[in-house]
Amino acid sequence: MVLKIGVIGTGAIGQDHIRRITNTLSGGKIVAVTDVNQEQAKAVVKNQNLDAVIYDDGHELIKSEDVDAVVVTSWGPTHEEFVLAAIQAGKPVFCEKPLATTAEGCKRIVDAEITHGKPLVQVGYMRRYDTGYRALKKVIESGQIGEALMVHCAHRNPTVPDTYTGDMSIVDTFIHEIDVLRWLLNDDYVSVQIVAPRKTSKALEHLQDPIMVLLETKQGVRIDAEVFVNCQYGYDIQCQVVGETGIANLPEPSSVVLRSEAKKSTEILVDWKDRFIDSYDTELQDWINSTLKGEVNGPTAWDGYVAAVTSDACLEAKKSGNIVPISLGERPDFYYKTLTAAGKL
Amino acid sequence: MVLKIGVIGTGAIGQDHIRRITNTLSGGKIVAVTDVNQEQAKAVVKNQNLDAVIYDDGHELIKSEDVDAVVVTSWGPTHEEFVLAAIQAGKPVFCEKPLATTAEGCKRIVDAEITHGKPLVQVGYMRRYDTGYRALKKVIESGQIGEALMVHCAHRNPTVPDTYTGDMSIVDTFIHEIDVLRWLLNDDYVSVQIVAPRKTSKALEHLQDPIMVLLETKQGVRIDAEVFVNCQYGYDIQCQVVGETGIANLPEPSSVVLRSEAKKSTEILVDWKDRFIDSYDTELQDWINSTLKGEVNGPTAWDGYVAAVTSDACLEAKKSGNIVPISLGERPDFYYKTLTAAGKL
Amino acid sequence: MVLKIGVIGTGAIGQDHIRRITNTLSGGKIVAVTDVNQEQAKAVVKNQNLDAVIYDDGHELIKSEDVDAVVVTSWGPTHEEFVLAAIQAGKPVFCEKPLATTAEGCKRIVDAEITHGKPLVQVGYMRRYDTGYRALKKVIESGQIGEALMVHCAHRNPTVPDTYTGDMSIVDTFIHEIDVLRWLLNDDYVSVQIVAPRKTSKALEHLQDPIMVLLETKQGVRIDAEVFVNCQYGYDIQCQVVGETGIANLPEPSSVVLRSEAKKSTEILVDWKDRFIDSYDTELQDWINSTLKGEVNGPTAWDGYVAAVTSDACLEAKKSGNIVPISLGERPDFYYKTLTAAGKL
Amino acid sequence: MVLKIGVIGTGAIGQDHIRRITNTLSGGKIVAVTDVNQEQAKAVVKNQNLDAVIYDDGHELIKSEDVDAVVVTSWGPTHEEFVLAAIQAGKPVFCEKPLATTAEGCKRIVDAEITHGKPLVQVGYMRRYDTGYRALKKVIESGQIGEALMVHCAHRNPTVPDTYTGDMSIVDTFIHEIDVLRWLLNDDYVSVQIVAPRKTSKALEHLQDPIMVLLETKQGVRIDAEVFVNCQYGYDIQCQVVGETGIANLPEPSSVVLRSEAKKSTEILVDWKDRFIDSYDTELQDWINSTLKGEVNGPTAWDGYVAAVTSDACLEAKKSGNIVPISLGERPDFYYKTLTAAGKL
Repeated sequence: MVLKIGVIGTGAIGQDHIRRITNTLSGGKIVAVTDVNQEQAKAVVKNQNLDAVIYDDGHELIKSEDVDAVVVTSWGPTHEEFVLAAIQAGKPVFCEKPLATTAEGCKRIVDAEITHGKPLVQVGYMRRYDTGYRALKKVIESGQIGEALMVHCAHRNPTVPDTYTGDMSIVDTFIHEIDVLRWLLNDDYVSVQIVAPRKTSKALEHLQDPIMVLLETKQGVRIDAEVFVNCQYGYDIQCQVVGETGIANLPEPSSVVLRSEAKKSTEILVDWKDRFIDSYDTELQDWINSTLKGEVNGPTAWDGYVAAVTSDACLEAKKSGNIVPISLGERPDFYYKTLTAAGKL
Repeated sequence: MVLKIGVIGTGAIGQDHIRRITNTLSGGKIVAVTDVNQEQAKAVVKNQNLDAVIYDDGHELIKSEDVDAVVVTSWGPTHEEFVLAAIQAGKPVFCEKPLATTAEGCKRIVDAEITHGKPLVQVGYMRRYDTGYRALKKVIESGQIGEALMVHCAHRNPTVPDTYTGDMSIVDTFIHEIDVLRWLLNDDYVSVQIVAPRKTSKALEHLQDPIMVLLETKQGVRIDAEVFVNCQYGYDIQCQVVGETGIANLPEPSSVVLRSEAKKSTEILVDWKDRFIDSYDTELQDWINSTLKGEVNGPTAWDGYVAAVTSDACLEAKKSGNIVPISLGERPDFYYKTLTAAGKL
Repeated sequence: MVLKIGVIGTGAIGQDHIRRITNTLSGGKIVAVTDVNQEQAKAVVKNQNLDAVIYDDGHELIKSEDVDAVVVTSWGPTHEEFVLAAIQAGKPVFCEKPLATTAEGCKRIVDAEITHGKPLVQVGYMRRYDTGYRALKKVIESGQIGEALMVHCAHRNPTVPDTYTGDMSIVDTFIHEIDVLRWLLNDDYVSVQIVAPRKTSKALEHLQDPIMVLLETKQGVRIDAEVFVNCQYGYDIQCQVVGETGIANLPEPSSVVLRSEAKKSTEILVDWKDRFIDSYDTELQDWINSTLKGEVNGPTAWDGYVAAVTSDACLEAKKSGNIVPISLGERPDFYYKTLTAAGKL
Repeated sequence: MVLKIGVIGTGAIGQDHIRRITNTLSGGKIVAVTDVNQEQAKAVVKNQNLDAVIYDDGHELIKSEDVDAVVVTSWGPTHEEFVLAAIQAGKPVFCEKPLATTAEGCKRIVDAEITHGKPLVQVGYMRRYDTGYRALKKVIESGQIGEALMVHCAHRNPTVPDTYTGDMSIVDTFIHEIDVLRWLLNDDYVSVQIVAPRKTSKALEHLQDPIMVLLETKQGVRIDAEVFVNCQYGYDIQCQVVGETGIANLPEPSSVVLRSEAKKSTEILVDWKDRFIDSYDTELQDWINSTLKGEVNGPTAWDGYVAAVTSDACLEAKKSGNIVPISLGERPDFYYKTLTAAGKL
């Protein structure tokens, strides 16, 4: 049984997913593509040697009888309409982050999915599929460190381009921690505070870098997260969970241990793509497998909504310097069912 | 383009390869299976929900027009005849180790393949596909540690079953080092000596465990390899290459760092399957891809022959306590071509 | 030349210093002791086989012509009067922390010392003498990580006795970070905030444990420090300095690497005495050597005062939950001279 | 009680011991010195500000009533006569390695000491006093890894001067492993084999570097030891003990963990003096303490003799390429008594 997939948006990440579904993963086939830039869509079909129809736009692609499931990798502001259209058509949809550019947009998707009555949407938070984070979650859930009390973490990039703005440190960078930490802790956030350390001289004038994000969860867990996007030395993701009886650290990527020039060293990655490349493979394979079984097993529309609300609060906390509450409302029962179906509850 | 694969032998490793080709990898399809135990073959087809013909024996399967390429995972003593038959039929064949149970058998395969005139055979030495060994090889080839002078390594299993004999410490266990170390160093062996340390009380009466294997290569590199199959504490593969200006260690599997009960610890695997599971995936995917391109990119029949000759010398050294020469004869030009085709020369 | 030392207070830490000066260090001799418990003082002289006069009280001991220098290891509330008396007598004095129980008391000592005109007082903050912290400071000062921007640290004890109160997490525990971090960064604090994570079930009812202390320095460095005194697993001191171009971590104590029972592990200490035992030796030897040269080379009365002021602000921040400013006033020129004399400026 | 010490030989190591006894350690006083170069002896007395008599030669110094104990740090070939003279005079003597330049010379010292009837001689093998080796021995003796079966070790220097000859790789370099490994294992050697790996291009023409030494002990433990004195990258001492149920590694020196320039690194020492500097302090302090109690607690004359015999066998094995037996004869009861007195038996 093969899942016939249509891809909306053939930019970098779209091409990447097409390549992985075609050459690396099992059970999926790209049968349809579209892009605002039709020439690019054609080039992708040709270069990747696809047997796929090129559609005029995403809505046509979604409607096509040939398409079982949809991957949305178009420009962020278009995500909402395509996801809503897919729900309308009753088709499973994998949407790259963000689910929508506003919390309200995410909420509309949540509501539409509940109205439809069956989960269809998965959001592309790939860290949940990282071997390291999964091993860490397993240790936490094993009880080896007792109840979690604190999390110390860091998200460091070597540099960012000139186009990187202060808000991006939240919506592009820290957004990954927002999703993965609540999944790790099986918890939700109640407030956020952001403080500004001494600014590095390596960042552009306009950019406060690093920042320190302080989150509090419903269970009372305190998270301190360093976001430092011009740290120079590498792409480095750290996460330490402090429990009542022990402490567990996210594994660092495996590396040759070198003794040379009076140093014992291991390599630190510099490109984020190398860090989570395996997670993308696992994520998409899991999506194909779950979709073939009629399930949603990954981050749901609700998770996309929570990320948006939390991210909005972070932006406000960053601007005001205040402790900002994070109000989500109750998680709809619908998403408990999703979790139950996926064996998570 | 899909590679239609027939599998001879549906025991544990056969089932494993069938499962991975069907559910995990891309580009291959199991279209034919056979086993001396026909009931088992039928059960596998049913359980794995395959769309595959069950053949009466390997020779029929090889001859079938439906079969593009053959995977040999039958009982060791039958490997030679099926590989020879595949060459005879001009079909690519992936053969689990050993290529044949004797050096002479391996040589017959080498000769048949040369006579055929085109490389067809790949042997299942999966360590060459391990991310760690590949990273180690890359460091060596980068020149960061200068020319290799020594290798210190260890192959440790927690325990072995009662059926494990002294010879198996060479032909089942150390055989992996035999293949991977010459690939790592791009070198060949010239002699071997084996010494017997104090015997562990945890091994069965009949078994000298551990042993220490001392190999010398053409380039003069000295390898000391501990083989310890009742080390109790875990499945642990160590490899340290000492070069003129630095030293490089095989990475250890990535693991959560835990602080608990007055210890800072990482996990050591206990099951060898967990250690190299990813290598099997990479190996088979690479075989499918290369085969579709008409190439052999992995360990060749010649590599299978070298492993057999070296393994024979090790057995003699183990029995006699002497330094035993390892004579391979010249590597046929044919296999240089294979390497060139694979971009290795 | 031998420094003739009088010790006021022969409790645990007093006995320890007497033993180290007598049996381990060079250049000092215990010639006088006293304690509110005269029997204990006598027992110490006898057990440690000292050639020392037992004085009725600290003031007599300080006045004695036989005593060149004074070590104050009596009960905390008595420190101020003995240090003031030593200054009055013009004698060098090593005072265990705290210098005085209030900031005002410390200020009186600072003023007395300045009036005296020559530095005489060293306070017993031994972490500055720890090999690890010294190595860390050296890396920071080498410029290898650029300017410091953030410090992440943790002070963890396995358990504390029932007598341990909430304030002690500041005045007994975190006080060490207060002193050592400003020395490490060559900086001072401007504000402090304390947040309360989920309370561990392993702490007594009355005790909020852990707490998270957030300090800001004059240079804008942000420090987050976990204080967790019932962490169960060990005595663990962590300190990570994040600079503009790199990150440096306090070394962990050296330990045998053990592979056993499916774990690769190193030991974590459980007793704080084992962690800093060498620092006490180095500290006292350095004090003897400096005193013989007429210098004060270690933490000064000013450092004792700063610790007291900062500690008071921490207590207020802990109670109120607010961001509390830390106002020190200007550092008197006198202490710059001390630093200059010690080759630190 | 102060031990009055006379030092024969005021070269580099002599000056070092004088400095440490005078400024760092407790309980000893340099009261006498001598050197073949009287000017140097005078300079040392002056520069180190000693209150010490300068003797015309070692024999006079030994005879002096003022001298309680003797430290021999003169030129190697003179060690035997001074140690014999000290025994003759009934005075405790600490002799830097080698005890004598031949096994016969060492035997004469052993015989003289037995005739004297009381242990007086300690040989300067300082590694037994290294914190790391002591921790490793403690782990072995705790039973955590079961009986020792193998030892893998390495002695690496960054470079050696032109004056370094092939024999020195045994008598100057590997001699430390010879002493410390039998102490670690509480065992003796029965044979040795030496093999020559590919020679590094960084060594001088005349020098085979590295070499691999293979030792077998009475208990059957197999030791493989790499001796590599031009390894370029650092001074690196490795020792891994493989036991029946686990494996223990000599701790590496503690170091700041640095993240910088895409590497996570710790420092490797380059100067051997930094590696064992603390051991020298501990060794001499222990010698002073034991001597004051009338005991010998460190490496005995017998240990010096065993080192000489083993070293001779290594030299023969290096030249011949053969497996060379190591015959010590029985350890005299006298040295069991020494061990018993020191609480080791």
